[in-house]
Amino acid sequence: MFESAELGHRIPREVYRRREPALRAELLEAQRELKAQARFPVLIVIGGVDGAGKGETVNLLNAWMDPRHIRTHAFPAPSDEERERPRMWRYWRVLPPRGTLGILFGAWHTDPIVERAARTLDGAGFERRIEEVLRFEQMLVDEGVLLLKYWFHLSRRDQKARLEALSANRLTRWRVTREDWARFEQYDRFRKVSGEFLRRTSTAGAPWQVVEGLDPAYRSLTVGESLLAALRDRLSRPDPVAPARGPVPVRSIDRRNLLDALRLRQPLGREDYAVELERWQGRLARLSRDARLRRHAVVAVFEGHDAAGKGGAIRRATAALDARQYAVVPVAAPTEEERAQPYLWRFWRHVPRRGRFTLFDRSWYGRVLVERVEGLCAESDWRRAYSEINDFEAELAAHGVVVVKVWLAIGRDEQLVRFRERERVPFKNHKITPEDWRNRRRWSAYADAVCDMVDRTSTDLAPWTLVEADNKLYARVKVLRTLCERIESAIAAG
Amino acid sequence: MFESAELGHRIPREVYRRREPALRAELLEAQRELKAQARFPVLIVIGGVDGAGKGETVNLLNAWMDPRHIRTHAFPAPSDEERERPRMWRYWRVLPPRGTLGILFGAWHTDPIVERAARTLDGAGFERRIEEVLRFEQMLVDEGVLLLKYWFHLSRRDQKARLEALSANRLTRWRVTREDWARFEQYDRFRKVSGEFLRRTSTAGAPWQVVEGLDPAYRSLTVGESLLAALRDRLSRPDPVAPARGPVPVRSIDRRNLLDALRLRQPLGREDYAVELERWQGRLARLSRDARLRRHAVVAVFEGHDAAGKGGAIRRATAALDARQYAVVPVAAPTEEERAQPYLWRFWRHVPRRGRFTLFDRSWYGRVLVERVEGLCAESDWRRAYSEINDFEAELAAHGVVVVKVWLAIGRDEQLVRFRERERVPFKNHKITPEDWRNRRRWSAYADAVCDMVDRTSTDLAPWTLVEADNKLYARVKVLRTLCERIESAIAAG
Repeated sequence: MFESAELGHRIPREVYRRREPALRAELLEAQRELKAQARFPVLIVIGGVDGAGKGETVNLLNAWMDPRHIRTHAFPAPSDEERERPRMWRYWRVLPPRGTLGILFGAWHTDPIVERAARTLDGAGFERRIEEVLRFEQMLVDEGVLLLKYWFHLSRRDQKARLEALSANRLTRWRVTREDWARFEQYDRFRKVSGEFLRRTSTAGAPWQVVEGLDPAYRSLTVGESLLAALRDRLSRPDPVAPARGPVPVRSIDRRNLLDALRLRQPLGREDYAVELERWQGRLARLSRDARLRRHAVVAVFEGHDAAGKGGAIRRATAALDARQYAVVPVAAPTEEERAQPYLWRFWRHVPRRGRFTLFDRSWYGRVLVERVEGLCAESDWRRAYSEINDFEAELAAHGVVVVKVWLAIGRDEQLVRFRERERVPFKNHKITPEDWRNRRRWSAYADAVCDMVDRTSTDLAPWTLVEADNKLYARVKVLRTLCERIESAIAAG
Repeated sequence: MFESAELGHRIPREVYRRREPALRAELLEAQRELKAQARFPVLIVIGGVDGAGKGETVNLLNAWMDPRHIRTHAFPAPSDEERERPRMWRYWRVLPPRGTLGILFGAWHTDPIVERAARTLDGAGFERRIEEVLRFEQMLVDEGVLLLKYWFHLSRRDQKARLEALSANRLTRWRVTREDWARFEQYDRFRKVSGEFLRRTSTAGAPWQVVEGLDPAYRSLTVGESLLAALRDRLSRPDPVAPARGPVPVRSIDRRNLLDALRLRQPLGREDYAVELERWQGRLARLSRDARLRRHAVVAVFEGHDAAGKGGAIRRATAALDARQYAVVPVAAPTEEERAQPYLWRFWRHVPRRGRFTLFDRSWYGRVLVERVEGLCAESDWRRAYSEINDFEAELAAHGVVVVKVWLAIGRDEQLVRFRERERVPFKNHKITPEDWRNRRRWSAYADAVCDMVDRTSTDLAPWTLVEADNKLYARVKVLRTLCERIESAIAAG
């Protein structure tokens, strides 16, 4: 991995001086075009050994480019707001919007490498982290992010010399910390681990570019020219139309599916309902105050046919919770700031801190439901969404978040009755729109989408619960019961 | 303040049962209309004595209304991200956007009352906090926020009885903390202090509504009806056209002004510039690493005529800083999420944590410059902006943030030369727009606006520095010097 970066690359100072002004002008011009097109963001990830000029390069890029459209983020010890959320949250929150550049000084690669080098992470754990990084970066690339990863390298001898030189100068001494020296003692181990990590996470869409850090002129020009070339290449190409991957699924030959197999009208009378409602709300209320829940959080997803009673089910759940503890997030059209980000960004921003609940009224599953059926996104987008969603929920679960997903299922006839009632009753009138009627006409296309969704995203960590909802009372109780049981098993597991 | 709320208000249970369904439907309808109009947000502030039903009322409002468009926020011990920013930041970050409701369970009133009751805040400090609250709430009201403040009260005897009752019940015992009992011991003192606070912060635009908390039916209906009435009233009225306040200022009779008094072309040659630049950048670099800066942060505002060299001055400053430590925020048209919030919200969101720099390329002063001159906001809006801006900067300064504001001043002739150059040189072309030419035609209107701005917002805490910028080299050095000197005096003061 590092062979070519230990050759002692250098360029003459005057070559640098001659090229630099033009390079800056061209970078500025490319950056202006990036802003004007606003089609994609650029994410520059900086890693490497200490003393190889990471910081200097970041400063240089900031000085060369228009500072108004570039943001640099470093990742020191996480804040408490970050610690209380899944690992990737702190990276999601700083992703650059389209048309801008983000520089990450250290990123998701840092901890796995450092921990593995220090042997606080075992081989299997390292494998899982590599896998996580690969999937995350693939998602970024699929979302159109121009992801550039630079690794600054020094040979063992050069690193030592450079750390000593920095330490000897009063103005640069602060850059060298005790940890830097401690890590240098581990040079060979670090080289081996980072080499392995770089090799494994260099993909066609986002390869690592290893830059020898010895000579400032060489490394600056290398990064500058590489950034310029990548920007120009991408700016000159139209948005890629990614091919839909995988075979077209065949619908089940006998037309039986998951939804048809449900008995949608389940018995439960008013009186029994009152008893059951109180019982499960009481249980949820006690669970929500259970001290063990402070190590967890709850993300509940409410999906279902139009008029299936999502809102009513949500209200029965929140009535059992302390209002300081939950947020209901209605998912409608994304805002402008959300549209400038990868698809899942707008859900990541609502991930709850420990001890809290977020209830999503509709969710990230919109992509594989309405967006798929109505053709609102490219086929390749909704096809890759299944695995992205599974990754997202796995990250939540890994952090102790209880992910509860319910599908409220009603029959076509029951829906018609409810639509008619909404049209008839004045204060329900606003709940029925032409869109509802349109969706209804595509009943079977939606059924296919729902069944695919359940098949592909019902996992042990985050299973789907199908709720028979022709009888609203039964559905509300089943939703409450599902919430309670999932939370109970999570806090029992610790 | 509390006399009417110690009468033992009650209503019969059946009155409540009869009214409640209709009230809920009407509240939902009003909420729907609020969402549809999306003209203003509703902010409900909840305060009061312990055991008076604050939590129950918040839960009830959440159960009654559509949970998708209502958010509740409580304010336990601040997170580190909150502690490292000015006091009001945590409230700014949760303000509800237009068309939605926010419920604050405890808010900016809590700490001053609790601290004053416990005597950790002296009389003068209490006065300052009241003043701060009054100004903040006035700003909200002026921004169109429907601000409803409910205070839940219990007489001394009733509070004791209720705390005892809650403690006796297994299901409600958790609601009563040791602090609740400790505070009860201070009942008389708390009553006196909160009474004083409520009286002083009850204004025409945002009066406190004191609700006796003894009887759940009474307090629930009282809050529900009051909220409904306030919503309906406001929904039925067009946006107020607030009268411009204060007399029209008279321009100075002899036509002399602050800008004219400057000698815009100051001498500084290339060679001296190189020396000075290195000197001040080095000084800024050392200051930025000074341990004492960790108790401060820096907010630098760059304003100036078009083509005055703001970008160049910013780049010379950031070149001296560690890229992990600063952000440059370009201020252009607000995003959709920003437009749904009070004017200063989009600047609050960029307030730096301790030890960091935010450099604003244009700023909140847009309101009293371009928006005033071009008539982009109502006269009443820019007239009140001066004091709102002073409040904002005073809050920053009170938290230790160094606020540096520079105006880069060039002459009309120099501007013409630079505009022409921008038109001529291809890679500067994008920096000149028809808007620039339009602004230029209004030169004297802008000059009036600039002079008013400096007169009204140059304060001891956050003074303006006028920078003579016909010679770019001189201007860049003066900006750097200003930054250094302001930071030095701040960290010397501690």
